[in-house]
Amino acid sequence: MAVGDTAVGDTGVGDMDERELWQELGQQLRVDAVRASAKAGSGHPTSSMSAADLAAVLLAAHFRYDFDAPHDPRNDRLVFSKGHASPLVYGLFRAAGALTEEEFGTYRQFGSRLQGHPTPVLPWVDVATGSLGQGLPVGVGMAIGGKRLNQLPFRVWVICGDSEMAEGSMWEAAEHAAFYELANLTAIVDVNRLGQRGETMHGWDLSVFTRRFEAFGWQAIEVDGHDVGAIDAAYREAEASDRPTAIVARTVKGKGYSKVENENGWHGKAVAEEAVDELGGLRNLIVDVAKPAAGEPHVFEATGGEWPSYELGSKVSTRKAYGEALAGLGGDDAKVVVLDGEVSNSTYAELFKDAHPERFLEMYIAEQQMVAAAVGLQVLGWKPFCSTFAAFLSRAYDFVRMAVVSQATVRLCGSHAGVSIGEDGPSQMGLEDIAAFRALNGSTVLYPCDGNQTAALVRAMADLEGISYLRTTRGDTEVVYDADEEFPVGGSKTLREGDDVALVAAGITLHEALAAAETLAGEGIEARVVDCYSVKPIDGATLADLRIPIVTVEDHRPEGGLGEAVLAALADHGVATPVTRLAVRELPQSGPPAELLAAAKIDAAHIVEAARAAVRTGAPA
Amino acid sequence: MAVGDTAVGDTGVGDMDERELWQELGQQLRVDAVRASAKAGSGHPTSSMSAADLAAVLLAAHFRYDFDAPHDPRNDRLVFSKGHASPLVYGLFRAAGALTEEEFGTYRQFGSRLQGHPTPVLPWVDVATGSLGQGLPVGVGMAIGGKRLNQLPFRVWVICGDSEMAEGSMWEAAEHAAFYELANLTAIVDVNRLGQRGETMHGWDLSVFTRRFEAFGWQAIEVDGHDVGAIDAAYREAEASDRPTAIVARTVKGKGYSKVENENGWHGKAVAEEAVDELGGLRNLIVDVAKPAAGEPHVFEATGGEWPSYELGSKVSTRKAYGEALAGLGGDDAKVVVLDGEVSNSTYAELFKDAHPERFLEMYIAEQQMVAAAVGLQVLGWKPFCSTFAAFLSRAYDFVRMAVVSQATVRLCGSHAGVSIGEDGPSQMGLEDIAAFRALNGSTVLYPCDGNQTAALVRAMADLEGISYLRTTRGDTEVVYDADEEFPVGGSKTLREGDDVALVAAGITLHEALAAAETLAGEGIEARVVDCYSVKPIDGATLADLRIPIVTVEDHRPEGGLGEAVLAALADHGVATPVTRLAVRELPQSGPPAELLAAAKIDAAHIVEAARAAVRTGAPA
Repeated sequence: MAVGDTAVGDTGVGDMDERELWQELGQQLRVDAVRASAKAGSGHPTSSMSAADLAAVLLAAHFRYDFDAPHDPRNDRLVFSKGHASPLVYGLFRAAGALTEEEFGTYRQFGSRLQGHPTPVLPWVDVATGSLGQGLPVGVGMAIGGKRLNQLPFRVWVICGDSEMAEGSMWEAAEHAAFYELANLTAIVDVNRLGQRGETMHGWDLSVFTRRFEAFGWQAIEVDGHDVGAIDAAYREAEASDRPTAIVARTVKGKGYSKVENENGWHGKAVAEEAVDELGGLRNLIVDVAKPAAGEPHVFEATGGEWPSYELGSKVSTRKAYGEALAGLGGDDAKVVVLDGEVSNSTYAELFKDAHPERFLEMYIAEQQMVAAAVGLQVLGWKPFCSTFAAFLSRAYDFVRMAVVSQATVRLCGSHAGVSIGEDGPSQMGLEDIAAFRALNGSTVLYPCDGNQTAALVRAMADLEGISYLRTTRGDTEVVYDADEEFPVGGSKTLREGDDVALVAAGITLHEALAAAETLAGEGIEARVVDCYSVKPIDGATLADLRIPIVTVEDHRPEGGLGEAVLAALADHGVATPVTRLAVRELPQSGPPAELLAAAKIDAAHIVEAARAAVRTGAPA
Repeated sequence: MAVGDTAVGDTGVGDMDERELWQELGQQLRVDAVRASAKAGSGHPTSSMSAADLAAVLLAAHFRYDFDAPHDPRNDRLVFSKGHASPLVYGLFRAAGALTEEEFGTYRQFGSRLQGHPTPVLPWVDVATGSLGQGLPVGVGMAIGGKRLNQLPFRVWVICGDSEMAEGSMWEAAEHAAFYELANLTAIVDVNRLGQRGETMHGWDLSVFTRRFEAFGWQAIEVDGHDVGAIDAAYREAEASDRPTAIVARTVKGKGYSKVENENGWHGKAVAEEAVDELGGLRNLIVDVAKPAAGEPHVFEATGGEWPSYELGSKVSTRKAYGEALAGLGGDDAKVVVLDGEVSNSTYAELFKDAHPERFLEMYIAEQQMVAAAVGLQVLGWKPFCSTFAAFLSRAYDFVRMAVVSQATVRLCGSHAGVSIGEDGPSQMGLEDIAAFRALNGSTVLYPCDGNQTAALVRAMADLEGISYLRTTRGDTEVVYDADEEFPVGGSKTLREGDDVALVAAGITLHEALAAAETLAGEGIEARVVDCYSVKPIDGATLADLRIPIVTVEDHRPEGGLGEAVLAALADHGVATPVTRLAVRELPQSGPPAELLAAAKIDAAHIVEAARAAVRTGAPA
């Protein structure tokens, strides 16, 4: 934005030339960081002060954004990967005229939108940051979206800390940005030398960072992060590049307040208001941020797709049904995009790829980047599904956790759940996934047992908000539901009636429970079989109404899984039904699936045994 | 090893010259990979065949290891980061004379030590691999141990896949290896071009990898991975280097069997036994692996240390007590080493650093590398404690999961648990940690409420096996236990007697429960207060004996935490006590701790309300 374009009058911009404006704005951002943190009594002013000039030049001269229409897909995107510099984020919003001085003063108060780390409670914050190393990977997702999906010329700017460059996820992002040729992505690395407890590994050796970015295929530019002219020139180079650009800026932590400048021991601490004087006092500049470039987002055609259906009694794996349903869903809903972690021939996401190659994103073996990219894509209105082995989604757990704080809607599919995968052994078995994903705020956890149920749940996931997780099984399982059966989220299915004992299962163990019920019937024990395909929310009403001894059985660890979900539902309903929980209670090994189910004591024979005991005593054996 | 040193006779080595031996051994390893997988009907022969020559030269000429004494601290260490190449691992053990042909034939069978991916069920496997991107970070831990702690000249060799170089954790490892100047570490990257579902990002462009390793401060050598002489020369260069070395080897997947060589679509598939003929038939070479260099591991002195104790009624944060106890423990036990993720001034691990700087390892903001290093260090007999914010331990969840498969003993401390951290907001709050860590096989989860209890539990952790997790709180809490109180793992404490209702809490909520009990007493309701500081194993016997309505309260999500642990214990005891569970059921925000506890409905006032309802109705309100 040329200074001539800026609003005048009470904005204070007046006749300043560009450099003067940028410098003044930088000082204003510092003053505001000091003010906000001093009032709150906490926060990260010094980490904001180091990046203030970088942010000032960006806002005043390069960023294109309509603050009145934050969801306009043509907007540039700004991600503070170093989310602790939240006073700087909020200062920028004030300088853009988006935040009032009054609201600015509520920083870190209960009920304020100005939280300790930025979250999308504020409309100009796309994603929550504050777990370091996540902003750049999320920015990669946004930039992939802009380039490949939305096909709009907006830019993605990510302000990174130097400390967080130690997170491997930053290099996953570097790798993918280069691979996807994201010339629309700029990483601004605020090398202020000081981490939380002391100097970083590399101090002010900027070349460490530039060499690495270059080795990963980026343009990298070293700059004095307090020289506004040099910053502007670097941004111009970034805008002109045909590659992603890293601007590696030498900065001073606490810059502008001599008492704390470049001093260790001031991370995350409020500084005294006296700093405001040294910084030249309060300013109230309002800059007229440039509006986004014109353009219409690309729209993919919904070409229609074949919806899978499976014959009762036939066999198909739920992972394959996932892929077939996803391909069908992609035909109906052109907003659906699919990401996979280099195992699409195992998760069957490849069936979507075959049908809709332009909406499939190969994320290679980089699960953190996969989830982060999905978070970035959903900001732009896409409906991402991500898949890998259930076990390997644990690699991205912090990213999923932060996606919750971002109020993001991301759909995950974890295949190869449980010991039933067989010979590949325990490293490949998802055994903690239900516990991990149930524990997330607002999440949905689904665990289908057959092809038709899987397909229905995939369709349901398309319309769910928040984090939804589908758990699929490696081996083929018998189709036990008609293709037109409905499976509401939060529901369950009673597949067999019986009044002596209830076998509550989901996924692979549902089939073991059905076999057990058959055996029990031969002994005169009538077992009811309940399919809790919706593990969260669980069908508490149905469970509470059982009022007969319950045996739960799951190919998962006993903690946090189906069994405890059932117990919680019963307790919440104030019902005291005895429950025996069968689950994987030892470290599994390799072997054929049937032998492993037996060894884990979750096969039909062990269900029969547990059911007998439950009927006999009304309690666990 | 010179060929002249090899055993002769039925080992088949005879008069071969070095190169001939290496080539023949490479072919043997291929034949064995084919045989093992063909018999099992699954496995990864093609990924083994690409790395066979790299492994052959290593075993025959560079690796120093006593197969009769795998735990000898002077041994070299070999980690297959690409764990799916397990047929190659087992073939090496057969070639070293450690595995019989008979056992070799049990690959992937139930009960066999030769699992689908290597695990320490075999004494020559230090750590389980199979979740890609973990072997190199674990190797970094071993190499740090060798250099800084054991102070022995052994080398760490890590065989990596090219696909797994996309995992950010590999670059965390690269960063730390250079920072710690690990000249004793060699990464052998098997660039066979093909991942599971197709080509990697970089195919055979070796320079991509060498440039990156160099940018991270390593020596990097490109080599033809089937030229045994070149491989040998590269290993010599690695041994002579003053930096960590990456040997980036161009290899052919499925090398030696023309039907599958360099062909996509053969990942993780058994190939026909006919390949054995093309490879020149069965061989039974036994190589005499060189013994480790002499030397005695360094022993640190146990200098004694001050054990903290806190006055009843005084206030201290459990995180600070953790640090003080750790410093004391380090004085008593010279095997204790402490790693922290650049937040040691928040977790108070810095108190250990101050007391025992030579046994403190700063891992910067790289939680995956932190846990991996701990896994590597415990292989060498060290007793690692790792700390960061509870929220950020989720970053390393897959590493902790794999540590379980490795049967590793690692102690974790997550600070800043729950909404009670206050203003920093939800990104910094550990709210899923109990669920995640409870779900691990054989884990222990401890959650102290005061300083003396924390200190006692830190001491207990030193002697626990498997993964143990201590959850600490940011704010100061009142000391409610005497310094000489004992806190057995699996126990609980009843802090207040009462027969109307039981308040079951731990950590920060224990104090809210005590306050609530006081209020309730004023209303004539006698509340028993039970401190479940041992969340796993939980004191089921005490809980089962309560037989009065229970209110559980936790600064954690309702799924998988204390509440469900209590329900599981009651169910397992066959006891039907009504339970009301208070937990964090919405996405928190920023604000003062007291306001956030109230907003989450887990403060004293909400406990009072729930207790009243429980007494009135015997069930949740």
